[in-house]
Amino acid sequence: MAEPADSYEKVMELARRRGFFWPSAEIYGGVAGFIDYGPLGAQMKRRIEDTWRAFYVLREGFYEIECPTVGVEPVYVASGHVKGFSDKMCQCPRCEEYLRADHVAAAHGIGNAAAMTAEELAGALRTLPCTACGEELGDVRVFDFNLMFSTQIGPGSQRKGYLRPETAQGIFTDFPRLLRFYRDRLPFGVVQVGKSYRNEISPRQGMIRLREFTQAEAEIFVHPAGKRHPRFNRYREYTVPLLGCGEQCGKGEPVGMTMGQAVGSGLVANEYVAYYIALTHDILVTVGVDPARLRFRQHLTTERAHYAADCWDAEVLSARFGWVELVGVADRTDYDLRAHSCVSGVALTAYLPLGTPRMERRKRIIPDMKALGPRFRGKAKEVADALVKADPGPDGAKVTAGGEEVFIPSGLYQVKEEEVEVRGEEVMPHVIEPSYGIDRICYAVLEHSYGEDMVEGEVRRVLHLPAAVAPVQVGVFPLVSRDGLDTVAGEIASLLTAGGIFTEYDESGAIGRRYRRQDEIGTPYAVTIDYRTLEDGTVTIRERDSMAQVRVKRDALPATVRGLISGEIAFQALGP
Amino acid sequence: MAEPADSYEKVMELARRRGFFWPSAEIYGGVAGFIDYGPLGAQMKRRIEDTWRAFYVLREGFYEIECPTVGVEPVYVASGHVKGFSDKMCQCPRCEEYLRADHVAAAHGIGNAAAMTAEELAGALRTLPCTACGEELGDVRVFDFNLMFSTQIGPGSQRKGYLRPETAQGIFTDFPRLLRFYRDRLPFGVVQVGKSYRNEISPRQGMIRLREFTQAEAEIFVHPAGKRHPRFNRYREYTVPLLGCGEQCGKGEPVGMTMGQAVGSGLVANEYVAYYIALTHDILVTVGVDPARLRFRQHLTTERAHYAADCWDAEVLSARFGWVELVGVADRTDYDLRAHSCVSGVALTAYLPLGTPRMERRKRIIPDMKALGPRFRGKAKEVADALVKADPGPDGAKVTAGGEEVFIPSGLYQVKEEEVEVRGEEVMPHVIEPSYGIDRICYAVLEHSYGEDMVEGEVRRVLHLPAAVAPVQVGVFPLVSRDGLDTVAGEIASLLTAGGIFTEYDESGAIGRRYRRQDEIGTPYAVTIDYRTLEDGTVTIRERDSMAQVRVKRDALPATVRGLISGEIAFQALGP
Repeated sequence: MAEPADSYEKVMELARRRGFFWPSAEIYGGVAGFIDYGPLGAQMKRRIEDTWRAFYVLREGFYEIECPTVGVEPVYVASGHVKGFSDKMCQCPRCEEYLRADHVAAAHGIGNAAAMTAEELAGALRTLPCTACGEELGDVRVFDFNLMFSTQIGPGSQRKGYLRPETAQGIFTDFPRLLRFYRDRLPFGVVQVGKSYRNEISPRQGMIRLREFTQAEAEIFVHPAGKRHPRFNRYREYTVPLLGCGEQCGKGEPVGMTMGQAVGSGLVANEYVAYYIALTHDILVTVGVDPARLRFRQHLTTERAHYAADCWDAEVLSARFGWVELVGVADRTDYDLRAHSCVSGVALTAYLPLGTPRMERRKRIIPDMKALGPRFRGKAKEVADALVKADPGPDGAKVTAGGEEVFIPSGLYQVKEEEVEVRGEEVMPHVIEPSYGIDRICYAVLEHSYGEDMVEGEVRRVLHLPAAVAPVQVGVFPLVSRDGLDTVAGEIASLLTAGGIFTEYDESGAIGRRYRRQDEIGTPYAVTIDYRTLEDGTVTIRERDSMAQVRVKRDALPATVRGLISGEIAFQALGP
Repeated sequence: MAEPADSYEKVMELARRRGFFWPSAEIYGGVAGFIDYGPLGAQMKRRIEDTWRAFYVLREGFYEIECPTVGVEPVYVASGHVKGFSDKMCQCPRCEEYLRADHVAAAHGIGNAAAMTAEELAGALRTLPCTACGEELGDVRVFDFNLMFSTQIGPGSQRKGYLRPETAQGIFTDFPRLLRFYRDRLPFGVVQVGKSYRNEISPRQGMIRLREFTQAEAEIFVHPAGKRHPRFNRYREYTVPLLGCGEQCGKGEPVGMTMGQAVGSGLVANEYVAYYIALTHDILVTVGVDPARLRFRQHLTTERAHYAADCWDAEVLSARFGWVELVGVADRTDYDLRAHSCVSGVALTAYLPLGTPRMERRKRIIPDMKALGPRFRGKAKEVADALVKADPGPDGAKVTAGGEEVFIPSGLYQVKEEEVEVRGEEVMPHVIEPSYGIDRICYAVLEHSYGEDMVEGEVRRVLHLPAAVAPVQVGVFPLVSRDGLDTVAGEIASLLTAGGIFTEYDESGAIGRRYRRQDEIGTPYAVTIDYRTLEDGTVTIRERDSMAQVRVKRDALPATVRGLISGEIAFQALGP
């Protein structure tokens, strides 16, 4: 199978022509950063999402929720997006084009552009040419541009709203309800698959940098002191190519390592992070990413969010774009719950019973109401209530009552030390977050599955898609569209469809051309009805990749095709 | 089964408590018009969407596409939403609350409020109390409020964007690509399932009036002269309760009628509209709408869009809201394609070969260049080109050349009449559109499936959901969580999960309470592992609705449960 040097143009041409995806609103000239998934692309995308759900929802047992894409401002104040979700921008004084300042600098070989301040970038840009018009930029102002799309909810600017920059925040804000749903126990996981938005300054990389994109995110809430994964054995011996912080400094290569070794050696922070790295590898290979072009790269301490305990990106090698991030797996600690708890004033903790209750010594303050009453009169009750919660010094306690600070001498209350039985504790869980960019995965799968080979002197274009994600599952062709072959083929197509198999019936053109048409969109199997079908009730099944054919009884077709697609039947086992 | 008088509160309480849905961003006080689907609701919603796809995508063979939710302005100029997608609004001068003017009027018994102009409404409101503060409204200004959420795409107000008010427009603007995908033939259908948005002025009806909601729409492109449905036989004898225009005037009741009768009598405009009315009835009943509380109401000519040839709403009877529209089925003629063609300047037609070419007489104009040359010099070519396309009168032809109108006397050209063979024609298809509101369907299914009965002296709350849409498909319970019963039950739960069945394992509390917990969320079957399981390898399966139990071999479980859920196995057939 020949591997084209840069398959990008070929994949994009195929995608547009055959209906995987194309620019949005083309009849109006399109708009950068938005694409439409066509009939085949939408089907493939949905199969990839459903495969993801088979892992996370069905197997891991994490329920999915669905929150709106429009959110109110306080959510994104708490999450930090209102303040910190921005890129450095400048405007070319000549052509008035908006430019991403760090990208312009990086395009001219300035190494650490992403980490530079606005002032540093402005200095660096002064003598550089504008990437749009080519004129020298000169003195430009570099400033932060917030990447959230904003809108107004309701009439009269009643409330500011944002299109969510990630699906995760809906899961965090629903924490109290979700904890109750899981009957107040840890760990539990919740997932969400849906649209998110980034109002990119100048998106130019097709599927890789979209303004509206689909995420699949899982948030796994764990006990801060319990980061051993209960099902770690599933992936303990699973090997993944890991590029740790250390290797990156020396431009090293990723090292294949089992998850047991990765955690044991301290390279990966804990079993949870390692488990979801392995599971991510498992999913990506299942949907058609080439394992030879897949690695997991640890975030450097300089790029990692300050609160994250560890963070790894699944990256694929693209012929056009180099190494591209598809998935991030992070231990976000309690950062998100703490932030929402602060801004909302709602406790986002779980009360967890202790295995064995423990005894603790605690101070209890008993106000002397006989003394407080005459001294504080109407305010006495309020003072007493404040006193109970106070932390008194040796001479007395400062409390706030009626808006004023009052000092209560130690004679006006008693302090008792007590042994109390502690039966449980309020715990703010830590969050492990695997976050998938579905559109990038769709593109990577197409690029990695694209191949060309020579068949009968002509180039055959093939998408070697796994059967689980191929948009059309089986093609059905009458050898010729007469002599009743077309009628039988139509019946067989209906039979397969009724069996839940996505079938495409095609009777036009030479049979070889019909095979090529399906090869090009990745249809894994084709069923052909010929004259022998009328005699003995058998049809041929052709496998896309090997182009081998076997004859099977037509009555066995739905079960056979279903078995081939699910992988329960191997094509070779159908025999010659 | 007892039917509560107004099950709304009960259904909403159950939905919040058990995790079907709840208000969005509750920890920030919520925001009207937005809800979150919790773990069970999101699962049920997805199953309803997938059932919809089983009808439209798999069976009808209509491919699904996926367009962005953010669209550029010209799309919504063409569709008419920028100009006409608005509600009449006023602001209370006392409490400053924004009100929907027609709703305030209607709430005070003014009959035709929806059809009144802004001036008429202002007059009607003058003496009415504000629905928020109760003060008399007095002189208020009534004006149009556009219901689209708007935003900016890119930095510096580069482009105005809107959140789409319906998914349909993405299908219309993709028409040229979709036509090519379907190899330039009619009819073909394309569907889209996704979020749409209406920035409601003052939404107060929970799931019925959301600002962000999910639509499932199909656009079927047909030949304007070919509105006989090729598969009409499927629904020719299918009976649906139809409330035509005529009946509504006399407050009549819907009439049960076959689709054959409905089209034959002229009540429904054509076979396409009738086919999708029947298919809609079929889907709604399949997902759990009570057929006794379902009708199809024809739009009155006053409420129907001017371009629509016919329009029917599927309406369900809700205990709280009365008759509520869930689905609209309309023949939109060529309105949408024509509008986008006008604004974009792109031809949105299909070139269809004629079955047998026909001969047509056509005029051909042949300019006399020898005469035009000297007279028009440099402009002669332009004049000649314009002349070829002109429609000349007896004395000559008016043409526009170089921005001026020029009269060309008939002596300067020849007109030849020719016989030409016409092999095909450019056709602008008509569109049949069934449009489903998924959130309303979710609510209707919950309300219609909610029931209470008395079991052992206690009220049992049950959701009688069809197995196809129940969020959890089977509960697995060890009779007690000891003596190895829990281990065996855990194995069985894993076995079912591995078989693709959504399973909930529960070992806590009395067995009766565990049954109730599953009854309340609509789980159709429960498998119990007891001491006999250890002896003879059998387990009990309990059916939710009848509460009957049968014993089956544990090895047969995945196939049996799968058969029960798909409907291929009847519970009674498992028989004792």
